[in-house]
Amino acid sequence: MHINGQPYRTIWPLEQDPDRVCIIDQRHLPFDFIIETLTTPEEAANAIREMHVRGAGLIGATAGFGMHLAAAASDENNFAENMAEAAALLDNSRPTARNLRWAVDRVLEGVAKRDNLRDKQQAAFEIACEIADEDASFCRRIGEHGLTLIKKIADAKDGPVNILTHCNAGWLAFVDYGSATAPIYAARDAGIDVHVWVDETRPWNQGSRLTAWELQQEGIANTLIADNTGGHLMQNGQVDLVIVGTDRTTHTGDVANKIGTYLKALAARDNDI
Amino acid sequence: MHINGQPYRTIWPLEQDPDRVCIIDQRHLPFDFIIETLTTPEEAANAIREMHVRGAGLIGATAGFGMHLAAAASDENNFAENMAEAAALLDNSRPTARNLRWAVDRVLEGVAKRDNLRDKQQAAFEIACEIADEDASFCRRIGEHGLTLIKKIADAKDGPVNILTHCNAGWLAFVDYGSATAPIYAARDAGIDVHVWVDETRPWNQGSRLTAWELQQEGIANTLIADNTGGHLMQNGQVDLVIVGTDRTTHTGDVANKIGTYLKALAARDNDI
Repeated sequence: MHINGQPYRTIWPLEQDPDRVCIIDQRHLPFDFIIETLTTPEEAANAIREMHVRGAGLIGATAGFGMHLAAAASDENNFAENMAEAAALLDNSRPTARNLRWAVDRVLEGVAKRDNLRDKQQAAFEIACEIADEDASFCRRIGEHGLTLIKKIADAKDGPVNILTHCNAGWLAFVDYGSATAPIYAARDAGIDVHVWVDETRPWNQGSRLTAWELQQEGIANTLIADNTGGHLMQNGQVDLVIVGTDRTTHTGDVANKIGTYLKALAARDNDI
Repeated sequence: MHINGQPYRTIWPLEQDPDRVCIIDQRHLPFDFIIETLTTPEEAANAIREMHVRGAGLIGATAGFGMHLAAAASDENNFAENMAEAAALLDNSRPTARNLRWAVDRVLEGVAKRDNLRDKQQAAFEIACEIADEDASFCRRIGEHGLTLIKKIADAKDGPVNILTHCNAGWLAFVDYGSATAPIYAARDAGIDVHVWVDETRPWNQGSRLTAWELQQEGIANTLIADNTGGHLMQNGQVDLVIVGTDRTTHTGDVANKIGTYLKALAARDNDI
């Protein structure tokens, strides 16, 4: 997606030196746009732990690149030990993030299939890139699926489709597009008039700090609201659709997500949204 | 109720000079405790308009004293005109506050029954005091009614009764005791162990600025929470009772209250609270 008109992902290896991996230090948004360069698995773990990066998809991608950085800095003698250490370090950097363990294990498994150092290092890098690319691709496809819902609403009403979202399941939480925001970006690309109600999302303000900012950067009409406001808007017919992220989804369809999501779900049900 | 161990109301005429009426300028809480002296109806209207005072009961009482100040500053020739002007000014100081119009009309009606200036002035003062006294008395009785609910819960469980409240319907919103808080203070006085979850109440933070402060001053255990948190606490059995204020209650029992109340009502219903 775009920042100041330039296309970005939230994490990327430098083309001229793939052992340097760039992230956006999201703690400073929306006030400052700061790019940080990670060169060690310790720095990657720290970036996750201290929330320079956050969001399920981006945490997974950062963990993948953290494993790549561990592999790149190892030699034949310490490779196995370094990878095990980096895995433990990254695993513990954010205990609730399931994508993290999954990304770490995926790199470890890929590396185990190769015989020599150079191949193992190459595999670690390729898998880290794959994880990031897949995340972007998954999000793009969430956008395609969600677009059909938004299109149906747009066809049935005049004026913009009003979408409420909570927290940041935007592209800043993933590698590109976002999960909850992907259908919004897809709708915009399809020429549909959309307007987003952005929950402030106390106590960390991911809505006001991140979601409002990224929508603004993409030129999507949005209004920042206190978390208390959504129910009132729904009662007054000003919300057509609620799209939120999910940290985990059970096979029965239950969703665990950022605190406050439950209150919006109840209000959406009460108002047939 | 108490501030720094001293008993206070939220509004009171100076004993030695009843034409000077004191309020707590609540805009500075919880950081500074500033008492402001009102001497004219203009100052009273300004205190309402600029939210030095807020809350249904206290707005009514301030309007009543504003009419007293208008009467006290008038002579035979300008009394009627001054009172009409003060009434219009106070009426317009907060368009949604129903208690305001009611208090103004009550002073006007009382004054109309008296014949001479001195009696009219005396009546205006007495009615303003009556309005404040009645407000305190109503709140105390809300406390008595609510106490029976809290007592029932306390008898049926171990540990503190956990009460969630939204915004400030505390004594700072009235003259004394508060409406939503009165049962909490009554329970404390009855020796019941109570703990209050205080909704921050964005966007104006009446919960964090006022409710948490007044409970603290009264030594009531309380925890400040983001507005998003209540639903999660309810789902986890950590809320026994929700008590909120009401700006207006219809005869069918519907309640209009501070934005966000609806979301908590839905969650309370969903969790049989």
